[in-house]
Amino acid sequence: MKIALLQCPPPAADPAAGLDRIDGAARDAAARGAALLVTPEMAVTGYAIGADTVRKLAEPATGAYHKAVADMCRKHGLAIAYGYPERGTDDDQGGAIYNSAQLVDASGQMRINYRKTHLFGDVDRAQFLPGAALSPVVALGDMRVALAICYDIEFPELVRAHALAGADLVIAPTANMVPFDSVCSRIVPARAEENGIGMVYANFVGSEGEFTYCGASCIVDAGGRDLARAGATDTALLIGDFVGRHAPEGAHLTDRRPDLYAALTAPNTGGET
Amino acid sequence: MKIALLQCPPPAADPAAGLDRIDGAARDAAARGAALLVTPEMAVTGYAIGADTVRKLAEPATGAYHKAVADMCRKHGLAIAYGYPERGTDDDQGGAIYNSAQLVDASGQMRINYRKTHLFGDVDRAQFLPGAALSPVVALGDMRVALAICYDIEFPELVRAHALAGADLVIAPTANMVPFDSVCSRIVPARAEENGIGMVYANFVGSEGEFTYCGASCIVDAGGRDLARAGATDTALLIGDFVGRHAPEGAHLTDRRPDLYAALTAPNTGGET
Repeated sequence: MKIALLQCPPPAADPAAGLDRIDGAARDAAARGAALLVTPEMAVTGYAIGADTVRKLAEPATGAYHKAVADMCRKHGLAIAYGYPERGTDDDQGGAIYNSAQLVDASGQMRINYRKTHLFGDVDRAQFLPGAALSPVVALGDMRVALAICYDIEFPELVRAHALAGADLVIAPTANMVPFDSVCSRIVPARAEENGIGMVYANFVGSEGEFTYCGASCIVDAGGRDLARAGATDTALLIGDFVGRHAPEGAHLTDRRPDLYAALTAPNTGGET
Repeated sequence: MKIALLQCPPPAADPAAGLDRIDGAARDAAARGAALLVTPEMAVTGYAIGADTVRKLAEPATGAYHKAVADMCRKHGLAIAYGYPERGTDDDQGGAIYNSAQLVDASGQMRINYRKTHLFGDVDRAQFLPGAALSPVVALGDMRVALAICYDIEFPELVRAHALAGADLVIAPTANMVPFDSVCSRIVPARAEENGIGMVYANFVGSEGEFTYCGASCIVDAGGRDLARAGATDTALLIGDFVGRHAPEGAHLTDRRPDLYAALTAPNTGGET
């Protein structure tokens, strides 16, 4: 399965510009044979745009952003993963704002709507509430995929949970900034290698408020090897081809000792003793 | 606290040679101001020496190897971490053979005796039974340390458990071979970074049976940065200086969501669904 990844600057709180960029990338990705396009965290609006702006621009999971992206999926004939600010509906946490990502398939069907569970610093906490559940794992083409968002993947527990649930690919829209470049170069490949699964990590470039995004977006195979990697500052559309994998590679999942890991699910103490 | 790391060839099932090499390294490490010397997995005997030889050379935790190393600790005035084949005593799993590592302090006191819990492939399983418990975390100088052995650290759960138990340093004797070089270059620094703790990973070089060890031993700080790193083929005594750290660096431990990690302690299914 060919997967495309868009690395681009954030759209500066302009959803029309954000959606237009996703549409253009979807057209190019489909032309290059991709079955899925992955875009950055909050790709529709930009990430560090302030709590007031986020609240103003937030949409329900089935709202205007979803409809626009579903149209692109049908028009170009590929799946799209994208990030956006989500407003909870009256039926589900009405009015609460989440940092969400969504996977829409080529038929325009929403397959995953995931609310970021691991909030990063003041920038996330000022803008969003944390999600209450991990992404499900869903079949897409010949792969089984889960969503994660940016800081989420720095937690080995989250990617491990997806691998144990049968994922062979974790898709992570991100907005990762200087000086955290090592997340792109080291942590993402480590997650792939330690679980025997693929990773797609789609970052911004350029600046937004106090942040300079560090690019280095990547598509990594189940051994942690780069299938494709972008530079630090350039807009890019990467293509990575996952060939015929249907189950995690290597023995890490079967060699685990879950009987020894009880500390990982105990209430948080932060390591202080 | 200055920590020394010995990278060397395996001693070819000759414990006298293995102990002599540790003694020489301990003398040099102490002369360079180190408070702790870390040596490879099964440093006393070599690692891939066959089940019959391992059984013949195995000693109880308080046996001849311990006594020899404790003498070195007192003589040179530093702590030593070393790997050896352990024979269970009549009081504790009599006759069973383990891949063990031990931390002995400068007074000659055994502080940790740890039996490898994550066995690697046929080579470990043919020679050893798995340990039943993780290492404790103990105070050594101004740091709190835990032991792990080789393949153990490829499991993020194990290092996380130590960090949550208050470790700010995980010491890992190893016998890591080609083509698993990425464990040295990527996984060990990732463990440090994702937990905000230091890592010491002491490997063999040279060949032993079918294996070629890949060296690249390292001492890594709490941000995943190399304090010292050896080459792929050379015998080396590295020195790394951990300055004034008493608690994990960064927010990863406090930003965890243990309520979402229940899958990690469920019985093993290997990710098959």
